[in-house]
Amino acid sequence: MAADPRFHPAATPLTLAEAAEAAGGRLEGGDAARLVSGLGPLDQAGPEDASFLDNRRYLPLLAATRAGVVVLAEEFLAKLPAGVAAIVTPRPYLGFARLAARLHPRPPPRPGRHPSAVVEPGAVIGEGCEIGPFAVIGAGAEVGAGCVIGAHAVVGEGVVLGEGCRIGAHATITHCLAGRGVVLHPGARVGQEGFGFAVTPDGGFETMPQLGRVILGDLVEIGANACVDRGSQGDTVLGAGTRLDNLVQVGHNVRMGRSCVIVAQVGIAGSAALGDGVTMAGQAGLAGHLRIGDRARVGAQSGVMNDVPAGTDVVGSPAWPAKETLRAVAALRRMGQKPGTR
Amino acid sequence: MAADPRFHPAATPLTLAEAAEAAGGRLEGGDAARLVSGLGPLDQAGPEDASFLDNRRYLPLLAATRAGVVVLAEEFLAKLPAGVAAIVTPRPYLGFARLAARLHPRPPPRPGRHPSAVVEPGAVIGEGCEIGPFAVIGAGAEVGAGCVIGAHAVVGEGVVLGEGCRIGAHATITHCLAGRGVVLHPGARVGQEGFGFAVTPDGGFETMPQLGRVILGDLVEIGANACVDRGSQGDTVLGAGTRLDNLVQVGHNVRMGRSCVIVAQVGIAGSAALGDGVTMAGQAGLAGHLRIGDRARVGAQSGVMNDVPAGTDVVGSPAWPAKETLRAVAALRRMGQKPGTR
Amino acid sequence: MAADPRFHPAATPLTLAEAAEAAGGRLEGGDAARLVSGLGPLDQAGPEDASFLDNRRYLPLLAATRAGVVVLAEEFLAKLPAGVAAIVTPRPYLGFARLAARLHPRPPPRPGRHPSAVVEPGAVIGEGCEIGPFAVIGAGAEVGAGCVIGAHAVVGEGVVLGEGCRIGAHATITHCLAGRGVVLHPGARVGQEGFGFAVTPDGGFETMPQLGRVILGDLVEIGANACVDRGSQGDTVLGAGTRLDNLVQVGHNVRMGRSCVIVAQVGIAGSAALGDGVTMAGQAGLAGHLRIGDRARVGAQSGVMNDVPAGTDVVGSPAWPAKETLRAVAALRRMGQKPGTR
Repeated sequence: MAADPRFHPAATPLTLAEAAEAAGGRLEGGDAARLVSGLGPLDQAGPEDASFLDNRRYLPLLAATRAGVVVLAEEFLAKLPAGVAAIVTPRPYLGFARLAARLHPRPPPRPGRHPSAVVEPGAVIGEGCEIGPFAVIGAGAEVGAGCVIGAHAVVGEGVVLGEGCRIGAHATITHCLAGRGVVLHPGARVGQEGFGFAVTPDGGFETMPQLGRVILGDLVEIGANACVDRGSQGDTVLGAGTRLDNLVQVGHNVRMGRSCVIVAQVGIAGSAALGDGVTMAGQAGLAGHLRIGDRARVGAQSGVMNDVPAGTDVVGSPAWPAKETLRAVAALRRMGQKPGTR
Repeated sequence: MAADPRFHPAATPLTLAEAAEAAGGRLEGGDAARLVSGLGPLDQAGPEDASFLDNRRYLPLLAATRAGVVVLAEEFLAKLPAGVAAIVTPRPYLGFARLAARLHPRPPPRPGRHPSAVVEPGAVIGEGCEIGPFAVIGAGAEVGAGCVIGAHAVVGEGVVLGEGCRIGAHATITHCLAGRGVVLHPGARVGQEGFGFAVTPDGGFETMPQLGRVILGDLVEIGANACVDRGSQGDTVLGAGTRLDNLVQVGHNVRMGRSCVIVAQVGIAGSAALGDGVTMAGQAGLAGHLRIGDRARVGAQSGVMNDVPAGTDVVGSPAWPAKETLRAVAALRRMGQKPGTR
Repeated sequence: MAADPRFHPAATPLTLAEAAEAAGGRLEGGDAARLVSGLGPLDQAGPEDASFLDNRRYLPLLAATRAGVVVLAEEFLAKLPAGVAAIVTPRPYLGFARLAARLHPRPPPRPGRHPSAVVEPGAVIGEGCEIGPFAVIGAGAEVGAGCVIGAHAVVGEGVVLGEGCRIGAHATITHCLAGRGVVLHPGARVGQEGFGFAVTPDGGFETMPQLGRVILGDLVEIGANACVDRGSQGDTVLGAGTRLDNLVQVGHNVRMGRSCVIVAQVGIAGSAALGDGVTMAGQAGLAGHLRIGDRARVGAQSGVMNDVPAGTDVVGSPAWPAKETLRAVAALRRMGQKPGTR
């Protein structure tokens, strides 16, 4: 499957030898000089395409694939149809991602500033940056070399972006220090005021000044229309490599460790502290001021009301250890299946 | 009730005969030449207004209404107060919508390009398009006749829009082929990178290139700040007539059929396949790679973890067939009402 | 802790006497002429900083604090370490917020219109407004004195903004009459078409014209990327002082009273009516056409399917009175902890 050239630059064909090297694997059963130029799932790939097998479930598709080459683990090599080459690696999905990135490298920035962009006095733009139409770079901001600032993106006063960041169209980033390679997808909101106020004697509200910042580690990615509020005092911090999907909400003073995965529409209330490698599945929520240990995993739609120890899986709303919830849910289901049960 | 003329063009008054024709119904008990110029609910409409009855619940309001004319079904005609005309149709809500659209037709595009808009070389703009301030049309994009591109909207390189599309203020649409009459409300995000990455041996992440597109059928509507990611390989597809409400999330490679209704804040994980006429109520979620049959209905806040057969209603998190969930919930409630029950 | 001067103007130091006056409290145990210039939590504040105690839980931190002055209630005064001054008030959090706002007053508007902004004919801009780059003010709009219109913000045709409103970057506001001091955070969407349509005999959809408005009371605040649809007929109304957090969805014709607190990612379906002082915690949802009484409180992730009387707490999905839900959940948990229980 060739990618649509209207939207993606054409692939640079690779020999199977090059493909294996890109995927970090060992070529088996193919002509090292044969070319691969496309990518596809096992059931759609053709002789010029690479595919991959990452899950035993898809073994039936492997047996019938017409792909030119398949990235897979040693154990599945014997199941490959005749005439299909293999790239053998213990991490086929990673290998396939690297091969795909070699075939379709991300287009480099097109250095230059669109004439309509506004760059306020005192802003410093690094070498080789691409600045799109109607982008606004605030006074005193520092944009590292090789950044791409999308159409209409707003980089606030004093913001610091490391090298190679990509700020999507319509994203806003203020009150923020970001490392290198940080990505904001379109419409992401970083650094705005958090939801903080005091109640007056007559039941009205007065805003608590939000005097902190957002600190984004290297390679952090923030999804489309997701929101990360700045700290009220002190900072909101996302550790290196952490990725937020679309429409995620992160309240003020949240601290996340490295390489967390926060799936779409998750909400994290203020001052929560997440360790490294925490995973939260879609639409889950975290109450404020909780501590979630390293590598804990929170199930989809779960509502976490208590601290979660490292390495623990929790599920449900309210969230409990996964085993307890699954047993409780099974018992509940039996009640639903037997009319009259109580 | 007249609509506020600061925001909505004044209605063109219709005779009752014209109103009945617009609503696709039969005029009963009114002077065919009398004029109707406004719209309102039964309890607020006055003698110059049209109203409607679509639900037996509102019969008490019908008895007291002062509306000039009411669109309703045959069976309720006898309940109408004296002096109120009726437009009789088996589909009163549709009839009323059509009457409303005749009184207040959507203003046509104001053809022209705001001088501040950026249209990149090679973009083709059809006849009669309205292009707002600071809009950006990328290189090679094709915009069909009669489209309205709102202020600050971004239409990416190579994007194809059919005739009569309306792209709201601040919306972004990239990597997309859209049919005719497609509507994006303000801040909608279509075509950005999905959430795809491989894990490296040291626990970091590498992005899987997202090489697909978004295909939007005719008359698809996408709500404010909703997000539709493009396919990773292959496409994300929304069938003709499908409507997404605000803040909905659609992951990469999701395929929806025709005339699906996806209510606000629903999340649909990657590679799910929905049939035609599927309804998902507010804040519901769908796990990845599921199949949801034609005309299935998913209740509000439900969390679907398994395939759903056609025509089936599911409710709950995790979602089960509606009857089972309702019985289980009733049993659970009894436990809550009797302290000490176990 | 001094706020980062790249993002926040430096504080104007206050004497303790001035600080006490700002906080509305009584100075105890400190030199009235000593200066305070920063703010911080009890465990991070230093001798030049003010802090506060609002919750018995943090008494251990009070005992060890090195803050220069602490805002607290009379009852905790005796627990203060020697050498730390106190500002005594029955409302320490409010007092601290006012002290913080005195140290860091919100910067006033920088009057003027960025040369790139578009102000359509007939728009009226009050005195002392700041209008950012690429802002668009529609024809006939009225912007009150001292408003700040952020970069790329769109104020639609005919919109009326009271004095001192702040419209964040990338926000859109159309079909709306707003009081004084209204705040829209970045990317907020106000006034777009609601989700309304009729079904045709062939299963397609036709849009019901959305002919109403949004009415925002004084001091209403709307979070980043939150959405408030205009009424279909009649209006969507948010009462004075009501605050919406990020990514909240408010459907057409919703009516909220004064001083409601709607936390992030809450969804409120069309035509719901909320009284004054209603609180909805994160990710909760409200079905359409419900009535929620004054000062009712809806727990996080709750799904409200029925009217809620004034002053009532509801929790769960579906939501019941909090006590019932907590008992039911406790019973359910016991079932999960005992394998084999039914």
